[in-house]
Amino acid sequence: MDDLTEPLAESAPQGFGPLIAPMSDVQRPLRQQIFERVRASGAISRAQVAKDLGISPASVTTLTSDLIEAGFLTEVAAPRDGQDGSRGRPPVALGVRADAFAVCGIKLSDREHGVVILDFAGRELAATCAPAAGTETLDETLSTLDRLIEDVCSRAGIDRRDLSALGVGLPGFVDAPSGRVVWSPLLPERDVALAAAAEARLGLPVAIDNDANLVALAELWFGVGRRIADFAVVTIEHGVGMGLVLNHRLYRGARGLGMELGHTKVQLDGALCRCGQRGCLEAYVADYALAREAAVALGRIGQPALPLSQLLGTLHARAKDGDAAARSIFHRAGRFLAVGLANVVNLFDPELVILAGERMRYDFLYADDTLSEMNRLILETGRTAPRIEVHAWGDQLWGYGAAALALSTVTERHLGAAREEPA
Amino acid sequence: MDDLTEPLAESAPQGFGPLIAPMSDVQRPLRQQIFERVRASGAISRAQVAKDLGISPASVTTLTSDLIEAGFLTEVAAPRDGQDGSRGRPPVALGVRADAFAVCGIKLSDREHGVVILDFAGRELAATCAPAAGTETLDETLSTLDRLIEDVCSRAGIDRRDLSALGVGLPGFVDAPSGRVVWSPLLPERDVALAAAAEARLGLPVAIDNDANLVALAELWFGVGRRIADFAVVTIEHGVGMGLVLNHRLYRGARGLGMELGHTKVQLDGALCRCGQRGCLEAYVADYALAREAAVALGRIGQPALPLSQLLGTLHARAKDGDAAARSIFHRAGRFLAVGLANVVNLFDPELVILAGERMRYDFLYADDTLSEMNRLILETGRTAPRIEVHAWGDQLWGYGAAALALSTVTERHLGAAREEPA
Repeated sequence: MDDLTEPLAESAPQGFGPLIAPMSDVQRPLRQQIFERVRASGAISRAQVAKDLGISPASVTTLTSDLIEAGFLTEVAAPRDGQDGSRGRPPVALGVRADAFAVCGIKLSDREHGVVILDFAGRELAATCAPAAGTETLDETLSTLDRLIEDVCSRAGIDRRDLSALGVGLPGFVDAPSGRVVWSPLLPERDVALAAAAEARLGLPVAIDNDANLVALAELWFGVGRRIADFAVVTIEHGVGMGLVLNHRLYRGARGLGMELGHTKVQLDGALCRCGQRGCLEAYVADYALAREAAVALGRIGQPALPLSQLLGTLHARAKDGDAAARSIFHRAGRFLAVGLANVVNLFDPELVILAGERMRYDFLYADDTLSEMNRLILETGRTAPRIEVHAWGDQLWGYGAAALALSTVTERHLGAAREEPA
Repeated sequence: MDDLTEPLAESAPQGFGPLIAPMSDVQRPLRQQIFERVRASGAISRAQVAKDLGISPASVTTLTSDLIEAGFLTEVAAPRDGQDGSRGRPPVALGVRADAFAVCGIKLSDREHGVVILDFAGRELAATCAPAAGTETLDETLSTLDRLIEDVCSRAGIDRRDLSALGVGLPGFVDAPSGRVVWSPLLPERDVALAAAAEARLGLPVAIDNDANLVALAELWFGVGRRIADFAVVTIEHGVGMGLVLNHRLYRGARGLGMELGHTKVQLDGALCRCGQRGCLEAYVADYALAREAAVALGRIGQPALPLSQLLGTLHARAKDGDAAARSIFHRAGRFLAVGLANVVNLFDPELVILAGERMRYDFLYADDTLSEMNRLILETGRTAPRIEVHAWGDQLWGYGAAALALSTVTERHLGAAREEPA
């Protein structure tokens, strides 16, 4: 593997520098905005880009020429809308040049790692998953990443030096701008410079982020982000996470470690959270919170502990059968979830909140009861309440989110660093 | 007053259109950024502007020429730092042209209205205050605004047609982008198009916003905003409010009605809030929340109600004297305030949180106990906790904040609407 530390192709230079811009910099150059507009729409005419961004057609022509020359965009046939009789020269639109870059996304988890390679248009070139070993040291984690990349590259039939960036997602507190893992259940060490260590070991630019931000990035690149500029994502798994997209860009808080909705307090001196504090939202909503009361509801006090998924599966089945105690556990968790969602709405006033998860119990947590409770807890403004959508992406989502992180990284690096200059 | 509906000077054209850009548009043209950089610094060289914004000196020269020609900036003598021996030609810096615009700010309240006229450099030209009549109809409110403007203009010795904009602040739920008051204790009607009605009546552009956003704007224009790009403001008065500045700009939530910290829920089925819901933060922290328990602590159950300020004054004096019941009221409110502040920190991860208010009781609420409690409730990231500053601005603050809203309006209107175009 020594050859991997050789100088890389131009698209992945050594000495990568900060991959994620400071969070206060929500400013983006026009050419980056043009690129993002094209990416979001799939295929779009120059005239429409000019209209959407409120800039002159001449400016769009100049800037898109640069983007085409640089290999980011390409001309494609415009989708016919059938109204022009399909006569004459086909109209020309702009699209993202799919083969401009390839990136890898890896979602590390304590159950199973998900790995995907996407091209610049977001098309999957290869995907795989591998069983996880639980907590691993930094060195073991780097070996795992190395092995996963080797595997997925061979499936895609590409050399890993063809990758322009790697995005890694993992649970815990991740300082994305600095590339440090403050704490993760997957690492025994605290405050680990994971991105820098992975770059040194793997020889390509690496960006890291936490689970909830990955979901928000996946939605931003491949989901609702194609039509909505601002939205919130709330994830419920082992913990409760949140991602916020502002003006087509992920917002991580002023210093990069915000959006910890799961650790906002909903009860003074309340239930004990795995973070060590009391009254956190996730101490009422996350799977371990449900499991705490399950033994009582299932009449298993003092009996050997069941695995978490089995315990919750049994609890869920009992609730479905109408068992009052089992139902009350989900009902209470749903009410606290409603509090958390209402707080998100009262603070961020989003048009859309996406609830993302994959677990069977969500049909209880996301029940009409919960949404009605949320509507009772948000400000009465006379306006329509925000839409709540449940997006039950599978495991694949996480890998795509990690790849979207890598795509964001590549885009920011190449388009976001310099500012366009007038005249 | 009919003459006020005559066509106005160019700086206040009829048909004003939306004064506040949609909240998702955190993008600003370069010339607006240059203006804001100059404004924030007082006096700054072109070279420093280029360095701060990461753009070429040539671009700064071009864009500042435009800004000087348009009357926004002017050349001033650079402050000497004493290191260059003060020889030779004095270096030239840029400053805001103070007389470019004059704006009026009015803070409506149920106690006293505050009014101020500022020039474009933020210098006070006149200020006054007037007793408030409590709840007034829309029509009465418009007459009040008209009278206050007439008064303060005559104090400043200017014609009201010289005003470029009016900023109005009031308590309640204010939809700033649309200029509508969803609900305010000062208006008997709901969903009032106050900004449009005031524009029609007063003949100048009007922007409106709520109390907490005024404080954030005052800090942005005249306070910490001169050195920090991102910060949060929490206000505690009759209610609990919040303002958030992101990248030198006020953030009001995706649809304009966010940041309602006072109505985030900190207790399921908790104390009754004046908004009609239960468990809101302000139902534990605001003055009416303290007053609810004061009768018990003061042994006044069943006795005639004291005025709110007298009741709280007595309670505060008792607490100072060591009365356990009185102290426990402030202690409990302080703990809930700590929960609210910790939630702000866990979500927004700000470098700085400003607590703003003017009431005597704050020395209890802001005591070391409260800040210690907050520090116990924020995520353990190994980093320094955000700074908490108490800014006990007087009543004057509110008028300045309203004037800052007007200044923001003028700046956005003249500099933010068009985008600069390359080449």
